[in-house]
Amino acid sequence: MPEQPAPEPPVVSFLSDYGLADEFVGVCKAVILRAAPSAQIIDVTHGILPFDVRAGALALARSVQYLPPGVVLAIVDPGVGTDRRAVAVEVETGILVGPDNGLLAPAVAMLGGARRVVSLTNPDYQLEAPGATFAGRDIFAPAAGYLAAGTPLEALGELVDPMSLVPGTVPLPRDENGRAAGEVLWIDRYGNAQLNIDPGDLAALGVEPGGPVDVECGHDRRTGRWVGSYAEAKPHELAVVVDSYGLVSLTLDRRPAAEELGLKAGSAVTLGPVEAGA
Amino acid sequence: MPEQPAPEPPVVSFLSDYGLADEFVGVCKAVILRAAPSAQIIDVTHGILPFDVRAGALALARSVQYLPPGVVLAIVDPGVGTDRRAVAVEVETGILVGPDNGLLAPAVAMLGGARRVVSLTNPDYQLEAPGATFAGRDIFAPAAGYLAAGTPLEALGELVDPMSLVPGTVPLPRDENGRAAGEVLWIDRYGNAQLNIDPGDLAALGVEPGGPVDVECGHDRRTGRWVGSYAEAKPHELAVVVDSYGLVSLTLDRRPAAEELGLKAGSAVTLGPVEAGA
Amino acid sequence: MPEQPAPEPPVVSFLSDYGLADEFVGVCKAVILRAAPSAQIIDVTHGILPFDVRAGALALARSVQYLPPGVVLAIVDPGVGTDRRAVAVEVETGILVGPDNGLLAPAVAMLGGARRVVSLTNPDYQLEAPGATFAGRDIFAPAAGYLAAGTPLEALGELVDPMSLVPGTVPLPRDENGRAAGEVLWIDRYGNAQLNIDPGDLAALGVEPGGPVDVECGHDRRTGRWVGSYAEAKPHELAVVVDSYGLVSLTLDRRPAAEELGLKAGSAVTLGPVEAGA
Repeated sequence: MPEQPAPEPPVVSFLSDYGLADEFVGVCKAVILRAAPSAQIIDVTHGILPFDVRAGALALARSVQYLPPGVVLAIVDPGVGTDRRAVAVEVETGILVGPDNGLLAPAVAMLGGARRVVSLTNPDYQLEAPGATFAGRDIFAPAAGYLAAGTPLEALGELVDPMSLVPGTVPLPRDENGRAAGEVLWIDRYGNAQLNIDPGDLAALGVEPGGPVDVECGHDRRTGRWVGSYAEAKPHELAVVVDSYGLVSLTLDRRPAAEELGLKAGSAVTLGPVEAGA
Repeated sequence: MPEQPAPEPPVVSFLSDYGLADEFVGVCKAVILRAAPSAQIIDVTHGILPFDVRAGALALARSVQYLPPGVVLAIVDPGVGTDRRAVAVEVETGILVGPDNGLLAPAVAMLGGARRVVSLTNPDYQLEAPGATFAGRDIFAPAAGYLAAGTPLEALGELVDPMSLVPGTVPLPRDENGRAAGEVLWIDRYGNAQLNIDPGDLAALGVEPGGPVDVECGHDRRTGRWVGSYAEAKPHELAVVVDSYGLVSLTLDRRPAAEELGLKAGSAVTLGPVEAGA
Repeated sequence: MPEQPAPEPPVVSFLSDYGLADEFVGVCKAVILRAAPSAQIIDVTHGILPFDVRAGALALARSVQYLPPGVVLAIVDPGVGTDRRAVAVEVETGILVGPDNGLLAPAVAMLGGARRVVSLTNPDYQLEAPGATFAGRDIFAPAAGYLAAGTPLEALGELVDPMSLVPGTVPLPRDENGRAAGEVLWIDRYGNAQLNIDPGDLAALGVEPGGPVDVECGHDRRTGRWVGSYAEAKPHELAVVVDSYGLVSLTLDRRPAAEELGLKAGSAVTLGPVEAGA
């Protein structure tokens, strides 16, 4: 094994709702590599449900602090073919490329905000389609590839006001009579249900690590326990854990909590203290 | 980010029906990289349904013009273990490797036709299996890797006549009493149904961009509208679009058209003009 | 195409039960590449069922002899957050990184056994989590990346006794009245059912290549035939083949045998000679 890494190749991190059954992802990567032959491409995920901009924005926000500096290409684009803009957003650690529909917004905020933004309008850095535009292949992937290869941002189109970017919409929990009323952000592969509630919200309810939590979702109401790690959940216990992203998740001992509780992304969940005598 | 890309590594573009649940794809890539350590491998897709040579051939044909010059490895191989040949086909932009069962044929044609063909028979460039041959791992991936690393084509086996390659079978639409009788080539992730009908066929029917089209599939008959992009489809309208590959597709506004119309690959679809008074 | 491969970049081969719907795999790769920017990462598979350590161990054992020398990262980790150790195991051809729960054991044995083992306890080579540890992202991927970049094994934690590693549990077939009583190790994408029975076991039963085999699974009992390759299976015949890994598999002619026989991983299967007159 080498003692030193080779000179750093440029990185393109790629997230989409394309799935892997079709060749969409492969073709976009081919287009990127034609512009930037030595690039390292990281597939963040392509399993976002079709057109689910919010789920894509959340997955990107969960990932982005771990991605190497470079280009981030994100495509969940129900508005392809409309007048929604295609943009490249310069941040401190690199450039995010994608549709201007809120998909990039939470990640951009986490990376310190937009410095400069271009609207991807220069046809010299696009492919011509034989019919309807396949924006990933014809606009976004070429932009990501050329930027990874060192093309200056401003070559790809006109600069636009960063304040004009469509904002993201990550819902905040509400206080409801001393309870935290939130919702499910994400169900992961193991069936854990991540909420838009953080440990500070729990503490504000008077709930303490190791102590009981009242969990209400739909018609179901249970007492869970705030544990320190997934492994601390006992076999028949609903556990509440601060997950590896710093948010509150509902989990069961090696069983899918979301399935047992009937939860999906967007489901309402309310947490509160367990009343004495309850 | 670098001002110039590094010297171009060799590219192997890889398509198969292996899926991603097993380790087949990973092992083939490992074998490729043992022969060509610096290769860039692009997964075109591995989601072709098991043994579906036609779907694989179509996905490859849709992709191939976008792939970087280099080696293309394609494996959908219901005849593994029979006397079907394993081949490497030299074209202008590189070499295609796979079974000689029609899988490569449309892509080879799109790339200008075969220049030279070898039958992959030289055991020096193959792995020995402890049982039945796993052709991807033992024959095709080593060939792709050695070719990517610069091994001359003729080292891998004997040259054979390019005319002896098994042809592909892409069905052409028929004219039926002034209507275009075609079939579904592909249902994509978004439920769009691509037909083997092109805009020239539509024009020959007297159908015009923006105008109505009579769409018949199974017992269903509807009036669609020829739109310029997916986004122009109105909520309750069946839209006909020249898709990003230059073929006619049936689409609905962010809903899966194929599911609503009961279409799958191979389903018959007939398009025609809307009669006055109809 | 180049005449010679470039200097070999380090390789990290990566297997997990993370699936591809979430961004777990992408984030781990990002973390690896931050430590080893030029690494080649091979996705062996991420389709192991959640928490199925045995299936992961078997997939790794099937793959490992084909992987390039370097680092192998394997994560199937139902005990995350317990006191199970995180380890790096040095073998002749490289280093395996993963939880010490038996996942690595069969692969380590196939690679000649452990030379040195460290427990991954040095926080300088780990990421800090904002909540519960995501061991892949925070411990295993950084270790794999730093090792790929040339960090010495002993920097990552204290050396522990290789004999203390948790052993793997690959079940051996039993002899039952002149029959081989085994079980299904793996159902592949094509529905072939690989058994923990090898051709030597078959020969010991007096079964011969080309000859009949008595196959019993559940309440089903059939006569199969020992064929030399998948393609030799006739349309309505149950075929027994020594598969490309050197183990006995049950297969049907381009149909999923496991589905028709009601088999899944772990199902009991008994093979024996066909009695004269039976």
